[in-house]
Amino acid sequence: MSDDDDRLARVALTWLAEPGTRSVHALVDQLGPVAALELLLDGGAPEQWLRSAVAARCREGDPRAVAAEALACRERLGVRLVTPDDEAEWPPQLDGLRRMVLRGATRRVDIETAPPLCFWVRGAWPLREALTRAVAVVGARAATAYGVHVATELGYGLADRGWTVVSGGAFGIDAAAHRGALNAGGLTVAVLACGIDRPYPMGNAGLFDRIAETGLLVSEWLPGAEPFRPRFLIRNRVIAAATEGTVLVEASARSGATQTFNRAVALHRRPMVVPGPVTSAMSVGAHELLREQPSARLVTGVPHVLEEVGRIGVDLASPARAPQRPRDTLDDEAALVLEAMPRRGVIDVDRLAARAGVTVRTAMRKLSLLEELSLVHRRDEGYALTTPARAPTPPRAEVMGPLHDDPGRPANGR
Amino acid sequence: MSDDDDRLARVALTWLAEPGTRSVHALVDQLGPVAALELLLDGGAPEQWLRSAVAARCREGDPRAVAAEALACRERLGVRLVTPDDEAEWPPQLDGLRRMVLRGATRRVDIETAPPLCFWVRGAWPLREALTRAVAVVGARAATAYGVHVATELGYGLADRGWTVVSGGAFGIDAAAHRGALNAGGLTVAVLACGIDRPYPMGNAGLFDRIAETGLLVSEWLPGAEPFRPRFLIRNRVIAAATEGTVLVEASARSGATQTFNRAVALHRRPMVVPGPVTSAMSVGAHELLREQPSARLVTGVPHVLEEVGRIGVDLASPARAPQRPRDTLDDEAALVLEAMPRRGVIDVDRLAARAGVTVRTAMRKLSLLEELSLVHRRDEGYALTTPARAPTPPRAEVMGPLHDDPGRPANGR
Repeated sequence: MSDDDDRLARVALTWLAEPGTRSVHALVDQLGPVAALELLLDGGAPEQWLRSAVAARCREGDPRAVAAEALACRERLGVRLVTPDDEAEWPPQLDGLRRMVLRGATRRVDIETAPPLCFWVRGAWPLREALTRAVAVVGARAATAYGVHVATELGYGLADRGWTVVSGGAFGIDAAAHRGALNAGGLTVAVLACGIDRPYPMGNAGLFDRIAETGLLVSEWLPGAEPFRPRFLIRNRVIAAATEGTVLVEASARSGATQTFNRAVALHRRPMVVPGPVTSAMSVGAHELLREQPSARLVTGVPHVLEEVGRIGVDLASPARAPQRPRDTLDDEAALVLEAMPRRGVIDVDRLAARAGVTVRTAMRKLSLLEELSLVHRRDEGYALTTPARAPTPPRAEVMGPLHDDPGRPANGR
Repeated sequence: MSDDDDRLARVALTWLAEPGTRSVHALVDQLGPVAALELLLDGGAPEQWLRSAVAARCREGDPRAVAAEALACRERLGVRLVTPDDEAEWPPQLDGLRRMVLRGATRRVDIETAPPLCFWVRGAWPLREALTRAVAVVGARAATAYGVHVATELGYGLADRGWTVVSGGAFGIDAAAHRGALNAGGLTVAVLACGIDRPYPMGNAGLFDRIAETGLLVSEWLPGAEPFRPRFLIRNRVIAAATEGTVLVEASARSGATQTFNRAVALHRRPMVVPGPVTSAMSVGAHELLREQPSARLVTGVPHVLEEVGRIGVDLASPARAPQRPRDTLDDEAALVLEAMPRRGVIDVDRLAARAGVTVRTAMRKLSLLEELSLVHRRDEGYALTTPARAPTPPRAEVMGPLHDDPGRPANGR
């Protein structure tokens, strides 16, 4: 059996049954794609519904001929087929799709799902490399100006630091995230729920061309496949599995984006949510996830996202969530004592304790702490504030300017 | 010793040492206010700093004379003094201030604090009754239009359901919360950090008059006391302790409102945070709390707040956080099956399974569930969707319109 036979069988199988069908993937695992296809075409599918589905498809055409025709279009469409046999290019993290456990509010659900059998790919980057350090940014199609702004900044900032921005190519948040990444000269991947030759929606055709020029368009479906609604759900598992974390920017109550998000949770990827105005219907779904999904992490910008998905020493200048200024580590009593210090000159402990409204013992204990942090220093007559030059305050850009770059962190070029 | 001697002593003690001073409160607990005052004036304070503070005060005036003068102004100022001896009017929940444990990110801090010795009160409501069902709404002075809108709606909605809205009378969020409550014809209490005769800020003088007409102005300090900065921190403990929960609406990084919030956490009151646009500097502190304070609960409006502080059966029509529609309880596979049901007519299980992309066994299991929830029903030839009339969908106003009233819930008049 040649490599071409394998590819043809994989394509035929995705035409016979929707991608992600667990029993089909199990057959391919056991028998290889060619024998699995033969078994299905001989009416040997293990389940009645699959036998019916295969029979129905075969009335529409010969699966091998359909697959061969699709493969023959590759050059004309400027696309290639990537399969798990292309080991250098297949993203290993998709193997996580062999089992997903969705946890609802009240019960645990094992969703039977499966990794893709193959991808149609348009664009020059090797797929595996493009998805090596990737974050998904997803959200509402009917995004607000706020959501579009936030998604664009996230796409820009992540791409600017060498992260691939993955999304679904939809209107609204998806498109904004792709555009942000493109504007940064970075890498972005659109995972489609339809044929790669007819990316949906048509209104984003120009965007899809730009993505393919510098990034990748990817689809599990044959060229010409229509974007039926259930396919978005199937596609979302790939967005979640291919990335190290999913950032949800805007979502109305129970939107499709929250499904991608729940898949990210089920796959143990980092689930992140950007909050928004509570007056906006487009943030209701985001706030719902933050309230109901215990593992959802609130993020306000690129530095928070990198805290979740980045590797210490590579993406972060300091351990995640460490206090940035000595002052921030202070408990309330130490803060009171520091507050009570005169701006200039020296104060003795008794007077300081009285000003701070604490006991002398507490004042002395807290003064040791403050001295250790170089915030005060001891003189013969008492204590004095350390001048700012002696206690440098690193920038807190990750908190103060959530959506802007922190110049204190190294950029990570690819 | 008369009741008047006790009152005079309490007032003198709050003049000698700032309210909330633990050792002074401990003396009052042991000896009663009159003897505690005598001990302090005789130089018998247990701590050196307190002896110094008392001596310094006594050089400014005779504490008993100062207190007597203040008490003599009560009628002219239209205020009264309420002490723990006024058992019918003293709010018992303030006793929680005997011990607060603040938990920082890295350590646990026992803050020595104490309940108030007395309150100056302006307004007709009995203090205890006014604070029986109370929620604090606090936030930034430099609030944005968004924050002001949210705080006003919260103040209105909470007051409209019979909850007292407590805040600090400051510009911005505080004032908006008070105004919202007033607009609803509800009860609001401003806890001041200065003399009750000179409420700060002056720009809110008209608001303070309106509050006193239908609600209460409250202060621990003598008339004439200035709003020194440390007094806000001392005052904040009362706002936190007097209420069943604190809602933080807007806060810049490390603002004073976050201190009230941390006190609410320390006192085991419900700590709630309204998120906002991540592009707004005035929501940075709110988002910080949601990220760093594990007990902080994201709320988007009155129904969420009532879920936290309300009593089931009184404030809530249904248990907190229960799913509102049968549909919302569905796992992904059941949702797929429901989605695959034809809008009209009957479908057999095999065809349905093929449409949904699930096994027949799964389809049958999920159909039982859907039948149990009255979403589908069995007919001779298969299954059909139940018409909406048979599966009523209660309104989900608490999610869809977070800041508007849910007509499905009973109003709770006081």
